[in-house]
Amino acid sequence: MTEVIRDVLMVGTGPSALTAAIYTTREDIDTILYERATIGGLAATTDMIDNYPGFPEGVPGMELAEKFEKQVARFGAQIDFGDISSVKREDEYLVVEVDGQPVKTRSVLIATGSDYKKLGIPGEAELYGRGAHYCATCDGAFYKEKKLAVVGGGNSAVQEAIFLTRYASHIDLLVRSSVKASEVLQEDLQKYVDAGKITVHLETKPLEITEEGGRASGVIIEGPEGTQTLNVDAVFVFVGLIPNSGFLKDSDVTLDETGLVVTNERFETSMPGVFASGDVRSGAVRQVVSAAGEGAAVALTIREYIDDLKRRGL
Amino acid sequence: MTEVIRDVLMVGTGPSALTAAIYTTREDIDTILYERATIGGLAATTDMIDNYPGFPEGVPGMELAEKFEKQVARFGAQIDFGDISSVKREDEYLVVEVDGQPVKTRSVLIATGSDYKKLGIPGEAELYGRGAHYCATCDGAFYKEKKLAVVGGGNSAVQEAIFLTRYASHIDLLVRSSVKASEVLQEDLQKYVDAGKITVHLETKPLEITEEGGRASGVIIEGPEGTQTLNVDAVFVFVGLIPNSGFLKDSDVTLDETGLVVTNERFETSMPGVFASGDVRSGAVRQVVSAAGEGAAVALTIREYIDDLKRRGL
Repeated sequence: MTEVIRDVLMVGTGPSALTAAIYTTREDIDTILYERATIGGLAATTDMIDNYPGFPEGVPGMELAEKFEKQVARFGAQIDFGDISSVKREDEYLVVEVDGQPVKTRSVLIATGSDYKKLGIPGEAELYGRGAHYCATCDGAFYKEKKLAVVGGGNSAVQEAIFLTRYASHIDLLVRSSVKASEVLQEDLQKYVDAGKITVHLETKPLEITEEGGRASGVIIEGPEGTQTLNVDAVFVFVGLIPNSGFLKDSDVTLDETGLVVTNERFETSMPGVFASGDVRSGAVRQVVSAAGEGAAVALTIREYIDDLKRRGL
Repeated sequence: MTEVIRDVLMVGTGPSALTAAIYTTREDIDTILYERATIGGLAATTDMIDNYPGFPEGVPGMELAEKFEKQVARFGAQIDFGDISSVKREDEYLVVEVDGQPVKTRSVLIATGSDYKKLGIPGEAELYGRGAHYCATCDGAFYKEKKLAVVGGGNSAVQEAIFLTRYASHIDLLVRSSVKASEVLQEDLQKYVDAGKITVHLETKPLEITEEGGRASGVIIEGPEGTQTLNVDAVFVFVGLIPNSGFLKDSDVTLDETGLVVTNERFETSMPGVFASGDVRSGAVRQVVSAAGEGAAVALTIREYIDDLKRRGL
């Protein structure tokens, strides 16, 4: 029985991995992708993507993901379902544990993305993309002259609340304890509070996002003044990011303090033969087209790496 | 008369500038783009783009460029024709010379791309994209089991000729004088010559690309053995790249030894308020989706820069 050794094994099937696979398979580089949950990643679960260039009227995330997948299939990439638990080097190959079984490969692309931390309250999952949001750059523009609630008290919550004032008529900022953002941001926030654009609710937690006609209609909050309902058109949640990098914790791949994979500008990680691109990468801007663009770039680096290995007879 | 001060002035209208403009205008940042020749840049002049994710069957370059432009127009960006001759700082603003007239702006995005150096022989322009090519990663896959000619003797010509052997049945490498590529590449090349995959023609120049039925049918060459016609399905030309950065030569923007704009990973150049993305940037991989991805990323950096200026009352 001949042992199969892959040229490149990609972990994840979001825009970054699928784009990388378009490039590698189009160049006849043997490529396998493993997905744990949904092909297309976070993009596939997005209601409407307005800023992926090439779709002037916007495109539903699921439809875009299907187009990516179809393009990959056309060039012959293999997509399998499987859960990755570790990446190790054994002599000249890398060994990736897939559902407990070792798979040998010459190179690995980590493109597992990041998940937004959720509140875990009623209405949140049901209204995802229709009033429950996690990305201001992506979805803020849908709420011109609307009322919003923003959840969180850290740097990103305050920064995104200020950013959203360019669209929203008013923002309720819901902070669990006190505002933890930097002094500069807090001073900035105060200006918007003084101008009546942002109202800060301290020691306040959201209990439920309410719905009307399939869209968010408000948020029920509990604070010093008891329980009340704020009438808002959407709730933007910024309480943290969870990079999908847990399977790397015992590997030689360096992660930053938040768990994102550290790479150089050629998308090489600290572990030879292991590359990373897209939202799991430290420094990524978390936009579909940027993740895709990095996928094309990392594919060129991977091609060079594999050509070099083969030149040396490995 | 009130003087108009732009938030961001973009030089170029290729995939990188258009994507950046989708992002900035969608966020209501006042944006103007200047184009010297064709809206859509090099992408617009490409016959068929096979590897831009989201178009499973490929998309004609002109059609993709039109989609980008339509999307930009939807968010309200202004595109004007004009030739940029300099970028200078005057007190708190940047001044860009457009057709000899000064235009004031808070920030500048340089996304002018690069042009491939041409041979300037008959048939080359006429058969562009249909047998005359300048990018192996983009167009090599269209020539599986076909015969190709590659023009050039430097590192990129030898590297791309070797790369193209994964598709082509045979390659004629046309070298004006002698092979100038690195020793490693020359050793590598020798293996392909020994295997009969590549034939090297030294002291040889192409005179004309011949046509049959609207596609390239061969190349007429002149060498030590006189003039002859090689029957090939396409000619790939790798004789150099011309970054469109001439207008920056008296500016504070640092260029690398080939004339490409040097940036850090946030796409900032050495000149405050001036940013660069896409094929004019040193380190760019020269793929449409990567240029677009960088456009989204640089737009986020520009937004931060402008927000910071305005916070300081500038």
